[in-house]
Amino acid sequence: MSISILTIGDELIIGQVQDTNSSWIAKEINNAGLEVKKIISISDSEKDIINTLNLCLKESNIIIMTGGLGPTHDDLTKKVLCKFFNDSLVKNEKILDHIIQLFKKRNKVPNELNFHQAYLPKKCKIILNKIGTASGMWFEKNDSHVIALPGVPSEMKMMMENYVIKNLKLLFKPINVINKTINTFGLPETNLVEILEEWMDNLDKKVKLAFLPSYNRVRLRLSISGNNNESIKNIIDYHVKKLYKIIPQYIFGEDQTTIEESISKILIKKKLTISLAESCTGGYLSHLFTKISGSSKFFKGSVIAYNNEIKTNFLNVDPIIIQKYGAVSKRVVNQMAVNSKKIFKTDYSISVSGIAGPESDGTDKPVGLTWAAIATPESCLTYKYKFGKNRVSNIQRTANSIFFELLLHLRNSK
Amino acid sequence: MSISILTIGDELIIGQVQDTNSSWIAKEINNAGLEVKKIISISDSEKDIINTLNLCLKESNIIIMTGGLGPTHDDLTKKVLCKFFNDSLVKNEKILDHIIQLFKKRNKVPNELNFHQAYLPKKCKIILNKIGTASGMWFEKNDSHVIALPGVPSEMKMMMENYVIKNLKLLFKPINVINKTINTFGLPETNLVEILEEWMDNLDKKVKLAFLPSYNRVRLRLSISGNNNESIKNIIDYHVKKLYKIIPQYIFGEDQTTIEESISKILIKKKLTISLAESCTGGYLSHLFTKISGSSKFFKGSVIAYNNEIKTNFLNVDPIIIQKYGAVSKRVVNQMAVNSKKIFKTDYSISVSGIAGPESDGTDKPVGLTWAAIATPESCLTYKYKFGKNRVSNIQRTANSIFFELLLHLRNSK
Repeated sequence: MSISILTIGDELIIGQVQDTNSSWIAKEINNAGLEVKKIISISDSEKDIINTLNLCLKESNIIIMTGGLGPTHDDLTKKVLCKFFNDSLVKNEKILDHIIQLFKKRNKVPNELNFHQAYLPKKCKIILNKIGTASGMWFEKNDSHVIALPGVPSEMKMMMENYVIKNLKLLFKPINVINKTINTFGLPETNLVEILEEWMDNLDKKVKLAFLPSYNRVRLRLSISGNNNESIKNIIDYHVKKLYKIIPQYIFGEDQTTIEESISKILIKKKLTISLAESCTGGYLSHLFTKISGSSKFFKGSVIAYNNEIKTNFLNVDPIIIQKYGAVSKRVVNQMAVNSKKIFKTDYSISVSGIAGPESDGTDKPVGLTWAAIATPESCLTYKYKFGKNRVSNIQRTANSIFFELLLHLRNSK
Repeated sequence: MSISILTIGDELIIGQVQDTNSSWIAKEINNAGLEVKKIISISDSEKDIINTLNLCLKESNIIIMTGGLGPTHDDLTKKVLCKFFNDSLVKNEKILDHIIQLFKKRNKVPNELNFHQAYLPKKCKIILNKIGTASGMWFEKNDSHVIALPGVPSEMKMMMENYVIKNLKLLFKPINVINKTINTFGLPETNLVEILEEWMDNLDKKVKLAFLPSYNRVRLRLSISGNNNESIKNIIDYHVKKLYKIIPQYIFGEDQTTIEESISKILIKKKLTISLAESCTGGYLSHLFTKISGSSKFFKGSVIAYNNEIKTNFLNVDPIIIQKYGAVSKRVVNQMAVNSKKIFKTDYSISVSGIAGPESDGTDKPVGLTWAAIATPESCLTYKYKFGKNRVSNIQRTANSIFFELLLHLRNSK
């Protein structure tokens, strides 16, 4: 049993749209204990779709495809699958009724294109789209399965969760797979390898190890599969425990956990609050905190002081200090953090001021220079960064770096 | 001539990491007038890599692959390509020197793994990695080309821009391709089709049209290719001009332009400024503005008033109003916007307060309810949204919706 994922759309092939569906589908399938062989993206061309289906079915017995089920003329999937499986479209009364009800609920009137979504292939199983008009389709022929889902992520996800995964698990016995990822920050990949050499040499042979570097983070993924779930879990736990003993100060979380989520857990547990005073990161740190469900328990608010006047008026930064040392300076971020902590009445506050780039700020300071500070209940710590001239990468790397410093501080303080 | 893109990594196949490289490469190739046939992701397996190379070379004569060139044991690409092209690794003195210099510049000492990056296949052309240790490799055999690049996006991009695209253009005559995308907001796909029916019927036969819906946005992509660049440009311009006449009030920009970028252009041109008062969107609107290079010309700052106390203390929202109508109410966002405009001394201000979800805010108001306001130089406009229970989607859809209202207002005001 193996699965190929096929996403269809000219927009993918010309790089206009990032294909996020296949990655999400791959994760769900992997979590269900089934295996993805390949992910393929091709254009909206009948010939390419049919060729690729033929090729994929040689390697995999299940193809999950998304896209091309919309109501407009450029959506080809339904037509092509009819041709591929020698099928034809018929009016499906149940789906027609569903479409009418859907529009009624939205106080809208369906048009011809919407109604046409009720014409579906005869031979396949129809997967109901509770929140849209594009039905899913499940074709089966000679023990091969082709499952077509809409490209709209929310619709595709609902069908995968409510129907596809369940039915795949009934058809194929899932294997036990454990993927455990340990997220580290602050050490380059090759230095990690040096420190972990002995640990790597002693890894159980069933464990597959991978290093995933991005910016100053490196994620270590340990993978294992086997028949006995408890025994493979014990193996992973044993090696992870050893890893924590070797590099405790570089680990910020496991699996999908972000640095800010690790911070939020400690803050909530210790009943501490935080506020922010952002200049060059312009709301990004605040956004990272408030993306976390329940962030109101620890996050009180921020001032985005993009303008020097705001730094003075809202955060009481001394204008003479700004004039003397510049807005991007140790003294200014110190005042921003200390004052923001006071004004917001929080236990902690982080401040950032930098030249995000690509343009200079008109001073002789280099593009990319960033100062950040953490006001703690006891003192104020300052940090200087220089990551380069790319604006978005400067914003992201600054956020990761200062959040990691806060995490270390929170872990080490009582 | 056709190109396949091949990305390698278990992390892609299990859905742990989103493959952003292939989409970026596809876009660059398309912009250069060359054609991508297929994008494929596979696991770090020698067998799979060799099988896929063989399959791809039947359809395409150029394969651009990324990933697996790192210094750690799980990186297989160099070894597999040696096998595939019957080649062997030799020490490359030039690259060795480059690695030594690179570490010297960073005040670090290379280790064995770093030095091993200087061992490279004999028969291929080596592509220098100015910012890293993983060299690119260009193999050629029987008029087929296999180009291997590192998976680190910044390193891959630099090699593509400085070497690969240039050399591909020398080898293959690019065709003229124009992709023009018109971004619309506020009309569902099927209604757009109805309104545009006549326009679509009269489209030049060379023009390929696609609808790309996501949330409340629909992007219309017009594609054309041909020998005469001016003639295909005229055809696209003609149809785009007609489109603007039919649906001017729904278009917010072209190609990669975002709603906030269109806003920023008008604000800068009219020398107007804006501030924000965000509650449930928690800094996301500020981040969207400050991502734009040059945003300090129109954006002065924000208060992220996540807590009611902050709404009162920083934005002078009447606590009696909060108590009587709740923080998520028309009156509160009205006060937030009007007061923030005053405090920040800006021409405009946007405020947002809502229950982003998935948890309720403890009142009887439904999860997903969001109020937003735009304080203009003349008055204050308020808007009510309800997008569902997903936190991140609520934040994003609110941002798009209120930004679109501001854009319409700015366009219609003198």
